[in-house]
Amino acid sequence: MKILDKINDYKDLKNLTKEEINQLCEEIREYIIDVTSKNGGHIGPSLGTVELTIALLMAFDPEIDRIVWDVGHQTYTYKILTGRKEQFKTLRQYKGISGFSKIKESKYDHFGTGHSSTSISAALGMRVAKDLKKEEGYTIAVIGDGAMTAGEAFEGLNNAGWLDPSKFIVILNDNQMSISPNVGALYTYFNKIITNQVFQKPRQKLKEITEKLLGKKAVRLLRKIEEYTKGLFAPGIIFEELGFTYVGTIDGHNLFDLEKTLQNIKQMRGPILLHVITQKGKGYKFAEENPVTFHGVSPFDKISGLSIKKSSLPTYSKIFGDALVELAEKDEKIVAITPAMKEGSGLVEFSKRFPDRFFDVAIAEQHASTFAAGLAKEGLKPVVAYYSTFMQRAYDQVIHDVALQELPVIFAIDRAGLVGDDGPTHHGVFDIAYLRPIPNIIISAPKDEQELRNLLYTAINSNKVFAIRYPRGNAVGVNIEDFEKIEIGSWELLEEGKEIAILAVGKYVQRALEVRKLLKLKGINPTIINARFIKPMDEKLLKITLNNHKYIVTMEDGVLNGGFSSAVAEFMADYGYTNILIRFGIPDRFIEHGKTELLEKDLGLLPEQMADRILNRLINTVKKEA
Amino acid sequence: MKILDKINDYKDLKNLTKEEINQLCEEIREYIIDVTSKNGGHIGPSLGTVELTIALLMAFDPEIDRIVWDVGHQTYTYKILTGRKEQFKTLRQYKGISGFSKIKESKYDHFGTGHSSTSISAALGMRVAKDLKKEEGYTIAVIGDGAMTAGEAFEGLNNAGWLDPSKFIVILNDNQMSISPNVGALYTYFNKIITNQVFQKPRQKLKEITEKLLGKKAVRLLRKIEEYTKGLFAPGIIFEELGFTYVGTIDGHNLFDLEKTLQNIKQMRGPILLHVITQKGKGYKFAEENPVTFHGVSPFDKISGLSIKKSSLPTYSKIFGDALVELAEKDEKIVAITPAMKEGSGLVEFSKRFPDRFFDVAIAEQHASTFAAGLAKEGLKPVVAYYSTFMQRAYDQVIHDVALQELPVIFAIDRAGLVGDDGPTHHGVFDIAYLRPIPNIIISAPKDEQELRNLLYTAINSNKVFAIRYPRGNAVGVNIEDFEKIEIGSWELLEEGKEIAILAVGKYVQRALEVRKLLKLKGINPTIINARFIKPMDEKLLKITLNNHKYIVTMEDGVLNGGFSSAVAEFMADYGYTNILIRFGIPDRFIEHGKTELLEKDLGLLPEQMADRILNRLINTVKKEA
Repeated sequence: MKILDKINDYKDLKNLTKEEINQLCEEIREYIIDVTSKNGGHIGPSLGTVELTIALLMAFDPEIDRIVWDVGHQTYTYKILTGRKEQFKTLRQYKGISGFSKIKESKYDHFGTGHSSTSISAALGMRVAKDLKKEEGYTIAVIGDGAMTAGEAFEGLNNAGWLDPSKFIVILNDNQMSISPNVGALYTYFNKIITNQVFQKPRQKLKEITEKLLGKKAVRLLRKIEEYTKGLFAPGIIFEELGFTYVGTIDGHNLFDLEKTLQNIKQMRGPILLHVITQKGKGYKFAEENPVTFHGVSPFDKISGLSIKKSSLPTYSKIFGDALVELAEKDEKIVAITPAMKEGSGLVEFSKRFPDRFFDVAIAEQHASTFAAGLAKEGLKPVVAYYSTFMQRAYDQVIHDVALQELPVIFAIDRAGLVGDDGPTHHGVFDIAYLRPIPNIIISAPKDEQELRNLLYTAINSNKVFAIRYPRGNAVGVNIEDFEKIEIGSWELLEEGKEIAILAVGKYVQRALEVRKLLKLKGINPTIINARFIKPMDEKLLKITLNNHKYIVTMEDGVLNGGFSSAVAEFMADYGYTNILIRFGIPDRFIEHGKTELLEKDLGLLPEQMADRILNRLINTVKKEA
Repeated sequence: MKILDKINDYKDLKNLTKEEINQLCEEIREYIIDVTSKNGGHIGPSLGTVELTIALLMAFDPEIDRIVWDVGHQTYTYKILTGRKEQFKTLRQYKGISGFSKIKESKYDHFGTGHSSTSISAALGMRVAKDLKKEEGYTIAVIGDGAMTAGEAFEGLNNAGWLDPSKFIVILNDNQMSISPNVGALYTYFNKIITNQVFQKPRQKLKEITEKLLGKKAVRLLRKIEEYTKGLFAPGIIFEELGFTYVGTIDGHNLFDLEKTLQNIKQMRGPILLHVITQKGKGYKFAEENPVTFHGVSPFDKISGLSIKKSSLPTYSKIFGDALVELAEKDEKIVAITPAMKEGSGLVEFSKRFPDRFFDVAIAEQHASTFAAGLAKEGLKPVVAYYSTFMQRAYDQVIHDVALQELPVIFAIDRAGLVGDDGPTHHGVFDIAYLRPIPNIIISAPKDEQELRNLLYTAINSNKVFAIRYPRGNAVGVNIEDFEKIEIGSWELLEEGKEIAILAVGKYVQRALEVRKLLKLKGINPTIINARFIKPMDEKLLKITLNNHKYIVTMEDGVLNGGFSSAVAEFMADYGYTNILIRFGIPDRFIEHGKTELLEKDLGLLPEQMADRILNRLINTVKKEA
């Protein structure tokens, strides 16, 4: 019988022998590989933390202690051992459990995560609260080396070192990776700690000076002192200087040593930073060998490690990346910036072709944006690629450093709209609404891959602040053609009908055409407009459309509050139009995880549902008027 | 004759003797004191950088080199010496020069600033661009020790250390202050560098171990080694570890030493961090003695140093702070968090009365928000106070850590709306529009000080995510009464009229009443509603209002795109209302600096202007219908 079948949750760990626990690790790995091969998910991060999780659950009690997992995608073992063993099979599925930590899912998920680098701040808040309430228990943040590069993590460290709380432990889970291989000076620093070369240079200087001043004997003595003091102020000094006691490095796969260390540091006072070394994808050959590919995966074949792809169409990310390479060949002013999303944003080829013009700035959306503003100020054409949901981190910089100064930065906003399995922390549904209030910014969304190319081409040659948002996943499948400029602010009249006009944004242009087919079956022939510019709008065409149609329908994969439909409503109000406006988009609540189609069905955003709602509105209006 | 009268700009510095330059420093100080005493402004920061600026302008050439001044409020000397000597008299005045660095004001302002901690990122972008374009010149960021605590500064350092550019200099202008006295582990660290005590603790340990192992002689030897190696790896090691060469500390008021140091570091390769010690308010007794008060001032009497106050009314900040103290006395769960804005946010009294429940987290809006989420998760009632414009830095955290998890954090948003002299970087006009798309958040704005108290009281007892926005400056002057709960989402019908209904937000409720008086003179009697909740709206009252009035007027001190008026337009569209909507607010452009009334006049937001526009709309509609 499997150990995993014998135990209920972490409380049973204490009844297991060392051998049984070792076996449990293997079983959990198998289980994670099995479930992620079917459901997709963050296999690499979670395989890397099996021992760390079990050690934590042996040394601490999540009923009393608090564990905040940064990002939360490394928590599969934690979920399995905190009451979600069976549910784990529903990982990332509609109505199933989340791929991240989530308060509403379990009392053991002490803080919800999804975006990186929040754990130290959240855990510190919980620590302070416990101290104020004089409650017992430890507070722990587990944060990756990649996540440590984001400003908020530093802000958290800075505050924690100042407040100097005891029973507060930050575990730096160092696998030398964020999603891409890591970059940044901090990475180099961690690497130096690990390879024990931190003080090679100053040490050499020290030796030279000592020898000169005091002779060779002194150098030998010095070497002895060095040996005894190694680790006293060499590794982890950044953390020491910020007020933490640094402990490390510890092998994150040696479970029992790790547990012992955890037990030991429980006794220490002041904030502790424990530096643990783990391997992404540990225990699954393919994931160990290809940590980038196996960071987060779609369903794959367990035996071959190959992805079970369903579509042969290129993703929007790839279309974007390829187009940028093509444009960059002819325009040496083009530079690309990514905050640690080289692969996800389709910039691998660009980084190879133009290494000098490619900047992976680590997980640092704020810096990415201001850095781009600096590049633009000096006459270059920076393209910043980030996911819609992560761009939220750079909101102030987009306003203050880019738009206010009208510095021509191009924002390539990937994963706009619903993203599916990753759920509420990752849906890119706010961007239209939060960008629209910002002056001097052009906001656009392509209906297909060729239009993405054309918008990028237009942006590159516009000398304007220019945002292009496009969805996760595969493009439509139209032919790739030469670049063509699009007049800024121009919409595209795709079908001319009457009575009803559908203004659709981005991915919903295709849907509008589907809705049209359904409506035509009912004898209704709506006008279809590709509202490829959300800002500025095509006011001329909009006026004509308002004049010639009684019903205006808007469709967008973003929030209704303040989004594109809101811009249309404002326009109607300002110009005194009284057409009937029917708005399709994301309502005022956070949307759960699950396949996008299932989520859309919930939201009434499938073609049949949209057609029905339009028809009903028509009938009701006719009745009312009759 | 004054030296300052003799010279045109920095290019003439080279013709001056040392004595003349010293005299120039004094003259510039007098000039700054004179102008700020009339216009108000950031006197403290600018008096602290007189010598630093001149040394920079002697060592570098702003025609070729790039200097990015973080925040940009310490640039008065720079402005005076780069072609704005006469214009400086118009500092912060309407149509005059800005109180911050501003690209559009001068070619010598290489990057615009206002919010803190962007300079390293921007300068790095400019450095990289210069390298790609193979242009000559140095790139310099001047950043305060306070600004260094924000995450973006760290992100910039991390990226710079990795990219390892030469001719890239970060000057840490360390005056041991941000706006308030500094906090955070980094501050302690800088302080340790300055007092030369960096390694006191580890050194002690080292000595003990050495003595134990090798005897007293070894300790003496060690002391000698220490002496020779002091400064080799003790000060600035954090920066060294991040890939910078650390130089410091240097007296920032010793102009000629400083210039020599700058000349020397020009020869060094790789990124340099120069640690300069300055004094805020240097050379003006009152500013030296009261650096917090004299950070930024309104007009004051030069001789007495006393502020020339025009109003005896309390500020909204004070009302908020006092109310929070009152509430905190009865509810020990209340805790207050500020990102380095204790004075500005009115939290001084709170910090004295409840030191254990007060958290100044340094300039770290992101951390402040997630930290508050952690506090709320453990059952406390955190109130985060920040300025509207700075809340932009925490946008992702408000969405991801607070609203998504429905953790009851209260956001006290000060300086909402136009802020006047500080201008476009500081106007708090985006908050309604960027908060409204976020689910689970209550957005409110009080019409006067008692309503602010009542909203705070309501928020504290609501167990909801709750934002309260209120303007800069003085409250209305109503009597302070006991706290009273306000039903969430309820509006207040202030005057019942007909045909026209004015829905006003926050400070514009008073204005609506003034507009009413003007309209009454024309025989029009509008309904006035205090729309104190922007979200949720009072749908019941809104429907009644829409049913009973032909014209709906909205007034808000925020952007029209996506703001409150937009919510009303959306509502009308969704419920099929076809009333005529007249929207008053901030149009789609950045608003310059100047007295708020002058700015409002430009925007047509004065009572007479509003009344006129409403009347015109009425007449035109009647004509159209006739």
